[in-house]
Amino acid sequence: MSWKGGCLVGQSGGPTCVINASLYGVIDEARRRPEIEEIYGALYGIEGILQQRIVDLGRERPEVIEGLKVTPGAALGGCRYRLQSADPNDPEVQQVFELFERLNIRYFFYIGGNDSMDTALKIDRAAQQLGYKLRVMGIPKTVDNDLPETHHCPGYGSAAKYVATSVREAGLHTEAMYTSETVTVLVTVGRNAGWLPAASALARMDHADAPHLICFPEIPFSPDRFLGDVEDVFRLLGGAFIVSGEGLVDEEGNYLAAEADAVSTDPFGHPELGGVGEYLERLIEEELGLHTRVIKPDICQQCAMHIASLTDRNEGVMVGRDAVRYAVEGHSGEMVTLVVPPGEEYRCTTGTVPLEKVANVERRMPREWINDAGNHVRQPFLDYVRPLIMGEVPVVVEEGLPRYLRLAKITVLH
Amino acid sequence: MSWKGGCLVGQSGGPTCVINASLYGVIDEARRRPEIEEIYGALYGIEGILQQRIVDLGRERPEVIEGLKVTPGAALGGCRYRLQSADPNDPEVQQVFELFERLNIRYFFYIGGNDSMDTALKIDRAAQQLGYKLRVMGIPKTVDNDLPETHHCPGYGSAAKYVATSVREAGLHTEAMYTSETVTVLVTVGRNAGWLPAASALARMDHADAPHLICFPEIPFSPDRFLGDVEDVFRLLGGAFIVSGEGLVDEEGNYLAAEADAVSTDPFGHPELGGVGEYLERLIEEELGLHTRVIKPDICQQCAMHIASLTDRNEGVMVGRDAVRYAVEGHSGEMVTLVVPPGEEYRCTTGTVPLEKVANVERRMPREWINDAGNHVRQPFLDYVRPLIMGEVPVVVEEGLPRYLRLAKITVLH
Repeated sequence: MSWKGGCLVGQSGGPTCVINASLYGVIDEARRRPEIEEIYGALYGIEGILQQRIVDLGRERPEVIEGLKVTPGAALGGCRYRLQSADPNDPEVQQVFELFERLNIRYFFYIGGNDSMDTALKIDRAAQQLGYKLRVMGIPKTVDNDLPETHHCPGYGSAAKYVATSVREAGLHTEAMYTSETVTVLVTVGRNAGWLPAASALARMDHADAPHLICFPEIPFSPDRFLGDVEDVFRLLGGAFIVSGEGLVDEEGNYLAAEADAVSTDPFGHPELGGVGEYLERLIEEELGLHTRVIKPDICQQCAMHIASLTDRNEGVMVGRDAVRYAVEGHSGEMVTLVVPPGEEYRCTTGTVPLEKVANVERRMPREWINDAGNHVRQPFLDYVRPLIMGEVPVVVEEGLPRYLRLAKITVLH
Repeated sequence: MSWKGGCLVGQSGGPTCVINASLYGVIDEARRRPEIEEIYGALYGIEGILQQRIVDLGRERPEVIEGLKVTPGAALGGCRYRLQSADPNDPEVQQVFELFERLNIRYFFYIGGNDSMDTALKIDRAAQQLGYKLRVMGIPKTVDNDLPETHHCPGYGSAAKYVATSVREAGLHTEAMYTSETVTVLVTVGRNAGWLPAASALARMDHADAPHLICFPEIPFSPDRFLGDVEDVFRLLGGAFIVSGEGLVDEEGNYLAAEADAVSTDPFGHPELGGVGEYLERLIEEELGLHTRVIKPDICQQCAMHIASLTDRNEGVMVGRDAVRYAVEGHSGEMVTLVVPPGEEYRCTTGTVPLEKVANVERRMPREWINDAGNHVRQPFLDYVRPLIMGEVPVVVEEGLPRYLRLAKITVLH
């Protein structure tokens, strides 16, 4: 059963290199579908829907839509706000559906991570209770790679490629300076899952290469064991390169070095975890007396389009495109997943999973992909991640810098 | 007047993207010169000379030498040690010349910044006093761009390109998140000179783009003025992107947020200045209540070969090559400089300058290239820096990552 109407697409959570590729996929596929009569975009995700900040994506210039495939950031704007309720009587839910009716929105696509899938789920449930004809599809994106039920997440491959490239380059740099600058700590994003610090292991060309130690959010942090590991590496090589996730916990499960003040808690309610690098630096300098530097690429991991993975980018387009396809075919209340059949050669297609199975659920690194000592990866993880970083995105370089495009954002409601 | 003998080349200070390109230039030119009979490399600069850690660069495989042009880090190792004396009776100076005699070193090339040029100068002076036939040429390198007497410094263009690319990408990312994550501070290297934070201005495609404010080491930092600037930008755009040099000083000339402990002072005697980002973050969050994040690319600025400037790389080769040429022609006690004749089209050749004019001298941003408010650049600076970031270095990508090579380091002395 299929119906006609407008579609609305929003981006939520932090951007990735390929969240605009997914937006491109939605727009380009929606244009080809007679069922979809208008293509609207919500600025700043659910915030824009509540504030009626809606733009007409059908009126954008074709080269700008095409340019989304090679532009980092979130072209529509992301947000860290979520719907609190799926109750049709909730004032926010009423606002959402007033807008949907006014624009005759019958297809809703929400590109985001596990927090954002919760908002998509609530909209789908409210629509059912209201008897409002709506198809809702979640489109996965997160550099953290922590969505369940999907082989991997769009955005992760590019962030993994950035981290591995940076560690390979910084590793060569640091080994040249071991006589004066001994220990380097690079902190990756990833609150509770170690997929990104793990990806740094791809950087190694030789066994003795950086990263020498990886700190995983999955492995409770023991200062004694960590310092022993650093000393071992230092004795062997004269220096050490450590990659750490931002969300390390102690044996009791408390975050190390979390900032507790109000300004440092994000609106999704998560504490900021920026202090892990400084914590490890202090620990190593005080306990071992070794000069330590900290690299914090921070959001560069999520937006370094100039070194993004072409595989990731193409899959980003694919999940956007297939979300439209599934919705038109009658799916709703589901998230698109990436499916990689076993086999020698890497191939990736899509499937779907009910939103309630992914909303607010985090998938962590399997313990068996981390070594016994809990400080590096095992080969099966490298086999898993390698295909995801393959290929280079052809960014357009103009006057020495990548050229990126912005949407005109032609407003349909004020 | 020309003489025959071996040549020795060393790298000093921190690596840049193109310090190996200069090493390539030295080796490739030395091979073509009948005056140069052997090509030796010192591991870890002057440290390796004092420890007799010398390798035979003539025995490296040609593809590895070629690979130096696209490999970051310092292939021979850098150091932060300097000769204390030019006195021929100084024990270290004696060690240096015992080694030189033993290997019949008649040409000495030292690739480094202003601290390193001081060591090259001391060796040249000691040779003269000893009547030891030696030609000494300094080869400039520093991402800080703070060497005097040269139009710009090899290494700077690539770091500038990295910073500008990162700020363009991170700027797009942050503007997508202004509703929840308001202020971003990216900290660049550069202790006392603002050349690198200034280069971030290249990132702007539109007037309202990041960076909105630049903090220069040249401009005394006033918290009140800074907070007023941040508020102005925030009121206008709903967010702010700030790029700051790592070495800000207050009105009295004291470094902000310098770490004073022994571990955090480098062996050249400079304090580490890693804390500026955290200082600005605290200031903005406490005084303005705006959520602030800090990006610290740190050494990625010096080693991101995957986004290095081809112009910079080619000039890196040129200064190495011309150092050999000048030495064979009879020059000594000089540093190679980059010369850019005025004119519409950018052209770059080399010249030389006596080492005493550059050793330990820092060149800062001209005040007239910084705007009146002291928080952004003026057009003449953009005209100066733009040609330096042009072109992309053709790195070899293998299995999704840049492939880099290492020297075999065939030891000639133990």
